[in-house]
Amino acid sequence: MSPLQHVPTAEDLKAAQARIAAYIHRTPVFQSQKFDNKSGASIIFKGEHLQKTGAFKARGAMNAVLINQEHAKGRGFVTHSSGNHGAALAWAASNIGEKAHIIMPSNAPKAKIEAVRSYGGIIEFCAPTLDAREQTAKAVEEKEGAFFVHPYDNYDIIAGQATATMELLEEHPDLKYLFVPVGGGGLLSGAALANAYFGSAKLIGCEPTNASDAHESFYGGHWVPVTTADTIADGLKTSLGKRNFPIIQSHVDEISLVTEAEITDAWHFVLARLKQFIEPSAATGVAACLKKSLQGKAGIILCGGNMDTQNWALR
Amino acid sequence: MSPLQHVPTAEDLKAAQARIAAYIHRTPVFQSQKFDNKSGASIIFKGEHLQKTGAFKARGAMNAVLINQEHAKGRGFVTHSSGNHGAALAWAASNIGEKAHIIMPSNAPKAKIEAVRSYGGIIEFCAPTLDAREQTAKAVEEKEGAFFVHPYDNYDIIAGQATATMELLEEHPDLKYLFVPVGGGGLLSGAALANAYFGSAKLIGCEPTNASDAHESFYGGHWVPVTTADTIADGLKTSLGKRNFPIIQSHVDEISLVTEAEITDAWHFVLARLKQFIEPSAATGVAACLKKSLQGKAGIILCGGNMDTQNWALR
Repeated sequence: MSPLQHVPTAEDLKAAQARIAAYIHRTPVFQSQKFDNKSGASIIFKGEHLQKTGAFKARGAMNAVLINQEHAKGRGFVTHSSGNHGAALAWAASNIGEKAHIIMPSNAPKAKIEAVRSYGGIIEFCAPTLDAREQTAKAVEEKEGAFFVHPYDNYDIIAGQATATMELLEEHPDLKYLFVPVGGGGLLSGAALANAYFGSAKLIGCEPTNASDAHESFYGGHWVPVTTADTIADGLKTSLGKRNFPIIQSHVDEISLVTEAEITDAWHFVLARLKQFIEPSAATGVAACLKKSLQGKAGIILCGGNMDTQNWALR
Repeated sequence: MSPLQHVPTAEDLKAAQARIAAYIHRTPVFQSQKFDNKSGASIIFKGEHLQKTGAFKARGAMNAVLINQEHAKGRGFVTHSSGNHGAALAWAASNIGEKAHIIMPSNAPKAKIEAVRSYGGIIEFCAPTLDAREQTAKAVEEKEGAFFVHPYDNYDIIAGQATATMELLEEHPDLKYLFVPVGGGGLLSGAALANAYFGSAKLIGCEPTNASDAHESFYGGHWVPVTTADTIADGLKTSLGKRNFPIIQSHVDEISLVTEAEITDAWHFVLARLKQFIEPSAATGVAACLKKSLQGKAGIILCGGNMDTQNWALR
């Protein structure tokens, strides 16, 4: 097999779903009367925080690892990531007995570093800039002959992430709305393709006001990078990927912005009502949904559940 | 129907299960590779934090309300509770269109007060002593003709709480161990009967070292009240009920004590690994399980998920 060189087709998505099925969880969905009362809609929460490695990233990483395993044989994989993709790639590679080199910024959170280590990832630290990350990854790629897997700007990754939305649409084909957080755009572009091929929901990308590059790019009609990203939704700080943006332009209906306060309120509401522990990035979709007046069935992808908790006091 | 006047039989438990089935959730179970690796056992977590009202208390309250509805008709129910039973009784009464008077201490947490209100409970505040609570409840009982439902020292309640363990044993009849938190003993005495009739697990009651009356009573062979209870497991501060203690003496194998630090660690571990938001009382069972070296299948009842979170910072 070779890496996908084109926007994934419906067949590519189905192939990805079959390929990764034995490795990932088919995650459960949650519903809550209190949420429905608050929003007016009937909300289906897709629990990707319960996915392997605690985030949807396991899907794309597993798909990319399986598709490219011949190219990586004995030399392993490499990526740069301060977040969930690093842990997911380490986990995915370990499933087929391959190494994974994870380039992490020297200031990465301890919990993320430990997660990568717990899945057997080989960590190489670099300066906390995008340039340093990319150069270090390139160096490992050349020195080790490792196969590079970009966190989101990669069609194998996009096809893998699409499977979260495919599952949701299989169980709820009548979704009228779908809320999906957007950072680099791996999850959202995957959702966009899945919904275009297999669904008919109004698709709303959800982004922090404090990291609004997808909003600017989408409505401005041309790619705009993130300049500052001072948000608690740490998974959504990255700029949209070049492969992700056109898919989003074609198949997403709206990008909705939410404030830090709205994300925080939504996060507390999920904890109090669903009793589910999600990361702030996942609360972004919830916040965007709660702002709208909706009728009918709405899906929200709770994208992950990895965050530090050691500072929380229990009394 | 009349309230049960005897230790519930296997038939009483089955009747309770059938009676409340249409009102409560059959709660899901969770498993985690990381937990299994840490404990050596195969752990099944029973998610009663996802029960209606956020705690197993909905089971007993619904059973008591349905059994006694003729006696309460038009006059409602009454109880005293600073915690989950108050909300559960208000919820249960509202399901059959009856009032519920909830006597709460004047220093009850805001979240608990709001929970009772959200289910339509009529709150009467009293001084924060057991005497004041009981007297105020008695006064409401006499003035309103309301039917009193004790939080745990009540056989209808015990039969209802037993249904959590019945569900767990139906799905996992081969449980070798079962860990159940103990405060007043409603959940533990229910688990004891369910396990005696329908299971064969070694049953371990789990209690904070800082509120060790069940431990003292169990090993001392006579009922000992709580004197001080300075624990984060706020649901476990009460003394064992008089009806609960003999059942526990007959059918529980062990009472295991855990420190505040162990409860806290277990709580964080559940959040990080299961992504489930439980209250510290529920973490008590997890902490007791993690201390032991086990082989085979172990069940843990995550008894509830109601706690204040407003002081937690997301950055």
